[in-house]
Amino acid sequence: MNHNARATIEEFSMLAQGDTVAAAVSGGADSVALLDFLCAQLDLGLTVRACHLNHCLRGEESDRDEQLVRTMCAQYGVALDVRRVDVRALAHTRGLSLETAAREARYAFFEEVARTHGCKIATAHTLSDAAETVVLNLARGTGIAGLCGIPPVRGDIVRPLIGCTRAQTEAYCAAHGLCYVTDSTNLTDSCTRNHIRHNILPQLFRVNPGALEAVGRMTAALRRDADYLSGAAREAGARAARGEGYDLGALRALHPALRARVIAALLEGGGAERSAQRIASIDAMLEGGRRRVMQVGPSLYVVADGGLLCLERRKKTPLEPIEPRLLRREAIDGARISLGDGKAVEFSVVNCADYEIFDNNGGRLLKNAADYDKIDNSIFLRSRQAGDRIQPAGRGCTKLLKKLYSEMGAADRERLCVLADENGVFFAEGVGVDERVRVDKATTHIMLIAFAHDGADGRMAPEEETA
Amino acid sequence: MNHNARATIEEFSMLAQGDTVAAAVSGGADSVALLDFLCAQLDLGLTVRACHLNHCLRGEESDRDEQLVRTMCAQYGVALDVRRVDVRALAHTRGLSLETAAREARYAFFEEVARTHGCKIATAHTLSDAAETVVLNLARGTGIAGLCGIPPVRGDIVRPLIGCTRAQTEAYCAAHGLCYVTDSTNLTDSCTRNHIRHNILPQLFRVNPGALEAVGRMTAALRRDADYLSGAAREAGARAARGEGYDLGALRALHPALRARVIAALLEGGGAERSAQRIASIDAMLEGGRRRVMQVGPSLYVVADGGLLCLERRKKTPLEPIEPRLLRREAIDGARISLGDGKAVEFSVVNCADYEIFDNNGGRLLKNAADYDKIDNSIFLRSRQAGDRIQPAGRGCTKLLKKLYSEMGAADRERLCVLADENGVFFAEGVGVDERVRVDKATTHIMLIAFAHDGADGRMAPEEETA
Repeated sequence: MNHNARATIEEFSMLAQGDTVAAAVSGGADSVALLDFLCAQLDLGLTVRACHLNHCLRGEESDRDEQLVRTMCAQYGVALDVRRVDVRALAHTRGLSLETAAREARYAFFEEVARTHGCKIATAHTLSDAAETVVLNLARGTGIAGLCGIPPVRGDIVRPLIGCTRAQTEAYCAAHGLCYVTDSTNLTDSCTRNHIRHNILPQLFRVNPGALEAVGRMTAALRRDADYLSGAAREAGARAARGEGYDLGALRALHPALRARVIAALLEGGGAERSAQRIASIDAMLEGGRRRVMQVGPSLYVVADGGLLCLERRKKTPLEPIEPRLLRREAIDGARISLGDGKAVEFSVVNCADYEIFDNNGGRLLKNAADYDKIDNSIFLRSRQAGDRIQPAGRGCTKLLKKLYSEMGAADRERLCVLADENGVFFAEGVGVDERVRVDKATTHIMLIAFAHDGADGRMAPEEETA
Repeated sequence: MNHNARATIEEFSMLAQGDTVAAAVSGGADSVALLDFLCAQLDLGLTVRACHLNHCLRGEESDRDEQLVRTMCAQYGVALDVRRVDVRALAHTRGLSLETAAREARYAFFEEVARTHGCKIATAHTLSDAAETVVLNLARGTGIAGLCGIPPVRGDIVRPLIGCTRAQTEAYCAAHGLCYVTDSTNLTDSCTRNHIRHNILPQLFRVNPGALEAVGRMTAALRRDADYLSGAAREAGARAARGEGYDLGALRALHPALRARVIAALLEGGGAERSAQRIASIDAMLEGGRRRVMQVGPSLYVVADGGLLCLERRKKTPLEPIEPRLLRREAIDGARISLGDGKAVEFSVVNCADYEIFDNNGGRLLKNAADYDKIDNSIFLRSRQAGDRIQPAGRGCTKLLKKLYSEMGAADRERLCVLADENGVFFAEGVGVDERVRVDKATTHIMLIAFAHDGADGRMAPEEETA
């Protein structure tokens, strides 16, 4: 591990003589190895600190991890910043999965530590983490950015172990007699990530025992390619820019690879989601002379007109409520109901046995998943009506939907989809399912509710960097 | 499947009104569905033919498959070309794996059919095949080209089912009551590919039931990116070209993503292998003013000198034989012995239980793999000596190594590595292992022999298109 990590620090100019660096230490093997390694690089002249975020997810165990890190830092004579964040509460408040909430809390803390001490933050991400990210993105759908693994450096964050495998960090701990906790990160990792770690990577090793190193070489090459493509797209975008938008003729003349990136940048500039399908739909708008408009946000539109492609924000006009419909539960699997404005809701029913890896910690999937067998056969699809109440799954209180929307700051409330059966509202778009129909261990069939836009299939290209 | 295949044909302008198209029919579900589908597209005005290559790998079963295809084509009233090739013999003669030999025989046959009838060839590759290729390349090591899946169109070859999953072709067969054979392709697929099909793809579906479609969208986006990168590299190469090579200053000024591609093109022009490691080594030669030389083939060199990077072919000078060495078998695991000229041999010993997926059909891996326990403890590493004999594993006769080299047209024979123990030669580079030490079902430990160049680790970025 030593040699590998030193080479990584040098290759990416991560740390210079005299730098202060705070190791982010969870207490797991990777981060314990990282802290020991950094302290041992005397020739680099570093001032080593540490920081630890207690996620408060496992009560005494979390405190035990924190204590291990405190003891270790005292032994090394290393200054330590500790922060306690109730990640479960944060996830509930913000409507995030535990994994996402934990990540956001961590990086906010890291940023604060970096600012306070004027230091870099070293995280213990390994090549194994990067390969898991690549496989996760591959399965979920991605472009080149999602195949670049975890960046070795991003701002003040450096990752000296990004070229080392988890086997190497564990071997390092064994060789140096270091104590670590084994479940420090698993709980905040998604079930999906654990599934990839335990079931998919070992299968890749059977194809090639050096698969991790192969993925490492691939991500390095793809980062180079992605960097070139981004730069070329930026230049092409600057050349095609006209006024507040882009010249249609100039866009049409671009190579499709660049055009897709310029359109993505336009959407990103407006804070709009940029799925592959949406980009393809906008690409199709470039042809033909007539004015074309596509809604891409509550009051945000992409407009192709007068030889220009641009974003338009429009004042809200009173919206029509959703046309009410009666659906039959038995016929709901595969149903797709148009809600107008290029938006649709799709239903599917799946057998629980096939979906054991769903995140049972309140993740996003479950928010839009109901226990099929707890729903009556008549399902009403409509907008909110006066008096609608819901008890969001996992929360202890029933609230007026009107109040919930207001708390959420929901836009275009008349256009949000509500599902009710004879026992009342069991789902509200943006809020999730009611406690009454929540998926639990006894569930055998899950009804999934998904929203699609632009005639798309509702899936996105997340290009996620889980770091 | 119908709708999907029609959309694919249109998207890639695969077939035009009045075209003649020959469906490559193995007799498996995919190709049987393809033939039926093509015959049913009356509005396209196609003249549909078929072609079938009998690989002669399974005796009567191969003949049964051929007969099924003959019967089917007679029923459809479709003209059929059949070719019989002894693929096992071809693989032995050419030193190829069965999978590679089968692929080469198939595409040679397709090319002949296309030429004879002035037609296109439709192969039945599916999205499932493309996803397997992506995972295979991911595990083995690849760049963007290896993540682009299987091209929908290449020359006269078109692949109308490349957007359909295997589940869809099987459903099509069921819906249309079509008979097919289930093992028509599995034998010529490598064990690795079958492993991916049966063990890895199902795990990806647990992450995302739509993983195949996600991979399909990814390959489409990456093909676009790869096309742009190739074009940009071609232009950059043309601008940097000077005389027979490239201007060093112009190369240094290029973005690394383009520079790597220009170097790869230089190597490709000389017919030299272009591994990622070799390209990185040549990239490092661009810095500094002094003359630098790297051997990249038997008499082929990359030279950086006088402000120019170019290939040089040199007349052969008498070569020194390899310096003889005595190695101990017990200490051979992990040994790396330099053979001079930037070439090295590496040994590793692996437990058979971990490697059950090795291709037992005479594939490439086994050619350089010996039964560790059948080798004496003293191993002599040297060049060929007069009188050296070997019985190449799987062949019935012992031959003089001199004669074998001559038959193979081996270059630089003095530099080829021979391994012998007290019972004689058990391995010769380019020939493989002797029958005496071949890996068989009783083998428990395998000694792997690998050759590396340029200080590289010997692994290549195959960017394989298994199609």
